[in-house]
Amino acid sequence: MQLQLKTWQFVEDYLKTKTGIIIPIGSTEQHGPTGLIGTDALTSEMIARGAGEKVGALVAPTIAVGMAQHHLGFPGSMTLKPSTLIAVVRDMVLSLARHGFTRFYFVNGHGGNIATVTAAFSEIYAERSMEKLSNQPSLKCALRNWWESAGVKGLSRELYGSAEGSHATPSEVAVTWHLYPETVQQKPMEPRIAPTGSFADAEDYRRNFPDGRIGSDPNLATVEHGKRIYEAAVADVARDYESWVAR
Amino acid sequence: MQLQLKTWQFVEDYLKTKTGIIIPIGSTEQHGPTGLIGTDALTSEMIARGAGEKVGALVAPTIAVGMAQHHLGFPGSMTLKPSTLIAVVRDMVLSLARHGFTRFYFVNGHGGNIATVTAAFSEIYAERSMEKLSNQPSLKCALRNWWESAGVKGLSRELYGSAEGSHATPSEVAVTWHLYPETVQQKPMEPRIAPTGSFADAEDYRRNFPDGRIGSDPNLATVEHGKRIYEAAVADVARDYESWVAR
Amino acid sequence: MQLQLKTWQFVEDYLKTKTGIIIPIGSTEQHGPTGLIGTDALTSEMIARGAGEKVGALVAPTIAVGMAQHHLGFPGSMTLKPSTLIAVVRDMVLSLARHGFTRFYFVNGHGGNIATVTAAFSEIYAERSMEKLSNQPSLKCALRNWWESAGVKGLSRELYGSAEGSHATPSEVAVTWHLYPETVQQKPMEPRIAPTGSFADAEDYRRNFPDGRIGSDPNLATVEHGKRIYEAAVADVARDYESWVAR
Amino acid sequence: MQLQLKTWQFVEDYLKTKTGIIIPIGSTEQHGPTGLIGTDALTSEMIARGAGEKVGALVAPTIAVGMAQHHLGFPGSMTLKPSTLIAVVRDMVLSLARHGFTRFYFVNGHGGNIATVTAAFSEIYAERSMEKLSNQPSLKCALRNWWESAGVKGLSRELYGSAEGSHATPSEVAVTWHLYPETVQQKPMEPRIAPTGSFADAEDYRRNFPDGRIGSDPNLATVEHGKRIYEAAVADVARDYESWVAR
Amino acid sequence: MQLQLKTWQFVEDYLKTKTGIIIPIGSTEQHGPTGLIGTDALTSEMIARGAGEKVGALVAPTIAVGMAQHHLGFPGSMTLKPSTLIAVVRDMVLSLARHGFTRFYFVNGHGGNIATVTAAFSEIYAERSMEKLSNQPSLKCALRNWWESAGVKGLSRELYGSAEGSHATPSEVAVTWHLYPETVQQKPMEPRIAPTGSFADAEDYRRNFPDGRIGSDPNLATVEHGKRIYEAAVADVARDYESWVAR
Amino acid sequence: MQLQLKTWQFVEDYLKTKTGIIIPIGSTEQHGPTGLIGTDALTSEMIARGAGEKVGALVAPTIAVGMAQHHLGFPGSMTLKPSTLIAVVRDMVLSLARHGFTRFYFVNGHGGNIATVTAAFSEIYAERSMEKLSNQPSLKCALRNWWESAGVKGLSRELYGSAEGSHATPSEVAVTWHLYPETVQQKPMEPRIAPTGSFADAEDYRRNFPDGRIGSDPNLATVEHGKRIYEAAVADVARDYESWVAR
Repeated sequence: MQLQLKTWQFVEDYLKTKTGIIIPIGSTEQHGPTGLIGTDALTSEMIARGAGEKVGALVAPTIAVGMAQHHLGFPGSMTLKPSTLIAVVRDMVLSLARHGFTRFYFVNGHGGNIATVTAAFSEIYAERSMEKLSNQPSLKCALRNWWESAGVKGLSRELYGSAEGSHATPSEVAVTWHLYPETVQQKPMEPRIAPTGSFADAEDYRRNFPDGRIGSDPNLATVEHGKRIYEAAVADVARDYESWVAR
Repeated sequence: MQLQLKTWQFVEDYLKTKTGIIIPIGSTEQHGPTGLIGTDALTSEMIARGAGEKVGALVAPTIAVGMAQHHLGFPGSMTLKPSTLIAVVRDMVLSLARHGFTRFYFVNGHGGNIATVTAAFSEIYAERSMEKLSNQPSLKCALRNWWESAGVKGLSRELYGSAEGSHATPSEVAVTWHLYPETVQQKPMEPRIAPTGSFADAEDYRRNFPDGRIGSDPNLATVEHGKRIYEAAVADVARDYESWVAR
Repeated sequence: MQLQLKTWQFVEDYLKTKTGIIIPIGSTEQHGPTGLIGTDALTSEMIARGAGEKVGALVAPTIAVGMAQHHLGFPGSMTLKPSTLIAVVRDMVLSLARHGFTRFYFVNGHGGNIATVTAAFSEIYAERSMEKLSNQPSLKCALRNWWESAGVKGLSRELYGSAEGSHATPSEVAVTWHLYPETVQQKPMEPRIAPTGSFADAEDYRRNFPDGRIGSDPNLATVEHGKRIYEAAVADVARDYESWVAR
Repeated sequence: MQLQLKTWQFVEDYLKTKTGIIIPIGSTEQHGPTGLIGTDALTSEMIARGAGEKVGALVAPTIAVGMAQHHLGFPGSMTLKPSTLIAVVRDMVLSLARHGFTRFYFVNGHGGNIATVTAAFSEIYAERSMEKLSNQPSLKCALRNWWESAGVKGLSRELYGSAEGSHATPSEVAVTWHLYPETVQQKPMEPRIAPTGSFADAEDYRRNFPDGRIGSDPNLATVEHGKRIYEAAVADVARDYESWVAR
Repeated sequence: MQLQLKTWQFVEDYLKTKTGIIIPIGSTEQHGPTGLIGTDALTSEMIARGAGEKVGALVAPTIAVGMAQHHLGFPGSMTLKPSTLIAVVRDMVLSLARHGFTRFYFVNGHGGNIATVTAAFSEIYAERSMEKLSNQPSLKCALRNWWESAGVKGLSRELYGSAEGSHATPSEVAVTWHLYPETVQQKPMEPRIAPTGSFADAEDYRRNFPDGRIGSDPNLATVEHGKRIYEAAVADVARDYESWVAR
Repeated sequence: MQLQLKTWQFVEDYLKTKTGIIIPIGSTEQHGPTGLIGTDALTSEMIARGAGEKVGALVAPTIAVGMAQHHLGFPGSMTLKPSTLIAVVRDMVLSLARHGFTRFYFVNGHGGNIATVTAAFSEIYAERSMEKLSNQPSLKCALRNWWESAGVKGLSRELYGSAEGSHATPSEVAVTWHLYPETVQQKPMEPRIAPTGSFADAEDYRRNFPDGRIGSDPNLATVEHGKRIYEAAVADVARDYESWVAR
């Protein structure tokens, strides 16, 4: 149930029985020689929508540009500064809280967002904690990385083992191929499994990971894998959302 | 050509001959009893993509939540504060400028964004103007409201006359029906043509425009109108983009 | 009635029957070879004061430095970044709102301010809209460009036709000459009517408009024109203020 | 020499031999039962202009609204938050620095501005100090309180002794009467000399100083005093500016 | 080697051979009925100093107030908002980078800091990544939680098992007792092992964890444990610092 | 009574009879060839603690990095930008105010902090003044420079006369030697008494004061002087705190 495809009167009715909403957040950044720049936003969006459908939850528009400063050495990558992304998350949550939403469940497709979005939740809470707003309903926010759900981890271990890596992974590439089969492509990559390591700013990242991948062999991905991973992610997210919102 | 569906190497090649990019910006806000909350983001996104296809330009991810504080009296509406939206536009433009993009063409679906996005352009320019960065390539940003293109204005005048109004208009409703035919619905509205007037904050807006519409009769929309308006918008935006980028 | 020339007890009495205030906003920027750097602030200030006198409204101190980043290629031009000007407008309005003022009518002398000041109004409203402050009196802000009032437009069309242009116009130059006759000067300009076009940052502006003018021939101005235009502006602004405040 | 009354070409010439500019800063706040709300801005503006005339220095537009949060208990008082005023001072200085100005001399009319404007200078310097911009010309800012010049202090001691006080002082009231003789008024005040003490926020201030004055008897002021004080201030500021700029 | 106890000439010499620095960061917040409010700052400070001594690294002053909004329901707890803490970390790192430091190793004593400090690192990197500052030396920041070092984890598992919990843990309490033996105290707590769970803002936290502890039994701590844990932490941090800085 | 060494239940009890707290603030910056980089933080911290002990007041953790942009030309110096320090002071005060503290007494060890911290107080007050929060208890903040207390001034005059100077003074050096006798060192300095003068940014400071001192001869300091000055400072601060808090 996409919020974008509903009317305000529909939302008014929804709020009579529910106060939770799912918010997909991704990134717009290089994903190696064959991965899509939109991988993290497209996957989190479609998994959030799939889960929302399953549990009858509204799904807000996707935050498509996340915190990806380290990818700026590769053309097409975009970032919000952490301070900007904090403001975005805050404004979105407070807009929805104004209507009576109290549970904000972010489905995340990008590791680089974790710290900043978690800090954004604290920014929201801090305003309330510092002002002692005990007369307002409590707001709760959660961030879940779809690629870390039990089902997805099981599959990626089974299908790719140590070639899963941590950026431009065959798992995420496979899901995008399931969703956008017209984008499937294979390219020889050298080395087959990309190096691993850490990074700081964009110059540093590109120096260490010249084709953009970290620890992965995306050529292992298949459309059929993508379908299985996608479905596992949707099922896990749906289940987790329901139990979280019920707490 | 959606940036999200390309690889970084594709963008690297693109930048060898082109430096322009199209960025859709919309809003997530009530659009009357039958209009979709995502109207402004969905229409600008699809029109931008249509135009991008026509002219071979990359289209960035959509800014789906815009400046819509005045709609917060209606459930489901979301806003970024102007100061937040300015930061978002700045970070997106500067990310892309880092790679060599120099022309940023925003296709806008929401009147409430105009002032803030224009101010954001000035914020970007001001940083450069104050530091006298004469050794950097000049950046140029443009904002175009698709509903004000000549073709669209002609059609809406012909099809709806004074019942077009200015919010939850039959034109924009028609375009969403063309794009999402499963969302078509009609409801009796009273008065048939909504009142017109001005507004300040959300309380004021809802007081003046109780069902969310301003000056419009969205029940006049049809799917077939939507197709014509959409195509006119795409053609106009494509043509305008090409001439702007060529300047 | 300049606020600056009153006592706090006078204002206390004023607020017993009125809640509106006029706030002049201009700019400090080049106005071509003969126009004054203070043109936009001086004209909006004097027109606001004239109108305030006519209708018995208080007039706040002038915001003399506005958003003029594009003029920074010319010595003496000053700007506030949009984000700074938004903060200024917000603080001024909220200071006055604290005392019971609820209607804030900005008389503007500079096109470059329009987007930013409009965004500032939304910033003010957004804070209230997001917090659902329904127990507070509604604040309303309006921005009016004196050079676009019906009377002024009629005169400029009659006196200058297409040589009015859009920056360093004979109209605004004439008004400053009426107010500061000691500054009258003529200089040959080449071409007589300046080029028109668009601009981005300060480098771009100066490249396109080498002597600062856009589309205008300020040598057509006379002191006597200035008197007529000034009086038309005062009358229009006074009338418009009264009808706006009465709504 | 008001910057506002000059052309950009005049400023271009000025910068060939001089790099200093005078910037008046005041406040818009209650000044007791008879003092003008604009006292601090009007006096600093006129003293700055007088001094600028004497020494041939350009005088920028006045910052008329300063940091006066403590006066907000009295109608008509306005404030910028310190963070806003810091941004304003920064943008004004950096705008002028872009053209080649390097010495910024603020003539201040309000004690409440001192800390914030001094912090603003540090904010400007800090950006440069943190980035090690050793290739740029050094910027220097100074803040001078006109009421603390030797000549003014001598006169106020002679004329008012301990009834000078520290807010709504007879000295500043006298200067405004000299400049705006139509505003002269006397009112009985109780006690004749206002109490002294400290204050925190606006509630606290009004509680401690019910009619707005601190330690002063403004009824001692005369137009003739105002003339003498004004002239002493202009002479002192002019002399100090010249020696500071020459360093 | 505390930076605070050195001269600038000492630091100048140090930078001839080293570019790393250790920065302790903690928090000021309740730690249950017997734990010290300064636990996180005191432990990280002393462990950082111990490690600095071992490896000959400078140790900067401690950031004693961190991100602890969730503890504000308990008297004495203090927080910086995430946006404030990001600015603090940024300014401290950039100050030191100005002198030639390039490796910034934060020893952290508080879980609530992790997201925000990590976001701060990205904020620092993002400024550089967006501006393509390839001519500057690369800066690298690391955050290490002392309580998660191998040695400390081994000890806490051995000494406390599942009674370690996650806030007001016997481990951290023991370390403070080792450092400040005069503060040792035991109090009966009910239940002996505190509940576990999640939390949002301060009201929510206090509701769920009425005496402040999460999952822990701090009465298990002893001074002698504290000594062992402290020494394990110092050894682990020293070793990790050396290997990180050498990379 | 260090807040860091207390429990939340201790603070809860404290607040039943007292609402004041002492907050030390210093700086981390060069103090000449022999002075410690931590001088200002170490002295204000220890003097605050000594005074707190005397009067039974809680002492918050020290703000060790202050506003010291002008010292960044010397290795090891650190600064917060004024805007950052304002946010820090605000968050710390509002955190404590949440618990019921209403009197915030800052013991300052660094002249460069005065303007910014005073502006921070106004920022705190301004938020309250602009919102007319008359239903909340009044907050009051004070800043006291320990080196300006009567007792300290008397001693420094007696011991050092005009060789006291204003940066890297024998007084402050002596106090650090009393507190950290292991850091005592003498070095020949040329000239014996450093030059005096003003400064702007870090380049300017270092140009004018090549070894970091201003107007001082720190070689006059002795450990025994330090003890006397420290005790005078503690006594003066204690007395002043008590009388201020009692007002």
